[in-house]
Amino acid sequence: MTTSEFRISTTRRTQFISMTSKIASIIADNNWKDGVITVFVPHTTAGVTINENADPDVARDMESFSDELVPRSNRFHHSEGNSDAHIKASFYGSSVQVIVRNGKMWLGIWQGIYFCEFDGPRERNVCLAFTA
Amino acid sequence: MTTSEFRISTTRRTQFISMTSKIASIIADNNWKDGVITVFVPHTTAGVTINENADPDVARDMESFSDELVPRSNRFHHSEGNSDAHIKASFYGSSVQVIVRNGKMWLGIWQGIYFCEFDGPRERNVCLAFTA
Amino acid sequence: MTTSEFRISTTRRTQFISMTSKIASIIADNNWKDGVITVFVPHTTAGVTINENADPDVARDMESFSDELVPRSNRFHHSEGNSDAHIKASFYGSSVQVIVRNGKMWLGIWQGIYFCEFDGPRERNVCLAFTA
Repeated sequence: MTTSEFRISTTRRTQFISMTSKIASIIADNNWKDGVITVFVPHTTAGVTINENADPDVARDMESFSDELVPRSNRFHHSEGNSDAHIKASFYGSSVQVIVRNGKMWLGIWQGIYFCEFDGPRERNVCLAFTA
Repeated sequence: MTTSEFRISTTRRTQFISMTSKIASIIADNNWKDGVITVFVPHTTAGVTINENADPDVARDMESFSDELVPRSNRFHHSEGNSDAHIKASFYGSSVQVIVRNGKMWLGIWQGIYFCEFDGPRERNVCLAFTA
Repeated sequence: MTTSEFRISTTRRTQFISMTSKIASIIADNNWKDGVITVFVPHTTAGVTINENADPDVARDMESFSDELVPRSNRFHHSEGNSDAHIKASFYGSSVQVIVRNGKMWLGIWQGIYFCEFDGPRERNVCLAFTA
């Protein structure tokens, strides 16, 4: 196993940001060829998902629906008042796995990898592990 | 790492289809013995999940609840009009991991692996990677 | 790949229980150093997620919101009457992946690994696989 990490800055409370090209460049820089990448978000109010990379309205619809489904609310008990962000983080999940073949991610043509911010804006980290 | 792929045909817009026996036969054909399989769906309006394999009403209840939770709606911005399918795909996720021991999937007795179609009917692909 | 498993007892119908220290001790006992752990729940009415380990109110808010979002209901078809638990299990998912470096889980400072019970109280199993 080899690992890498990088930072990402978010600018809104709920924001999906593509990490696809950043991850592709890390794969190239590390000469990772054939294996599986684990993309792991080490935060409890952010997650990661794979979805459409073409029309930015898809990410926008996912952001707004997520906030409608789990609205910020004072009925929660957690004293920081951001339980909605914790719940959204677990719905999307803290990691995705992507297969790499001959140095290229085996994604569908419309797939991109998104960082899912639910309590921004913040500076965040993303962890990568490659196992062959 | 070794990989495999196969095609699956869906017949309804929202449909959970068991892939368990297909994946078991690929494991046997490839002589995969001890490792982890990543089952990856390279689509943005379909996902994959593990759930009950015995009573087909469980998959039926999951289909209907998913459509109630994220109904098709014209309030979304994505011009193709299928943002609900994209959102459902990310809720279930694009991959599952299954442990394989001595050539058998280490699943619970009631567990099966389901392809989750949210914008069918379509011809779809499923990608598999085995790491030891 | 090497594997391990352990049992966990739940005491309420919906209950998030931290497994972080148990998993850390299994990593130490097995001398797992650098690789990826797959934490897999072999049940169809329970899942696993990563979320805040500090304030127990976060887990409590996740439990209550999950039950509000997918209430127990007699409109489902599954004859056992626990379709809500099956649906919640798939929303959180049956596995998480955690990167291990030099024998330590590469988690964020606030992250813990939770068993997610949705149809307890029960005796449950958790499966672990480590790939280097």
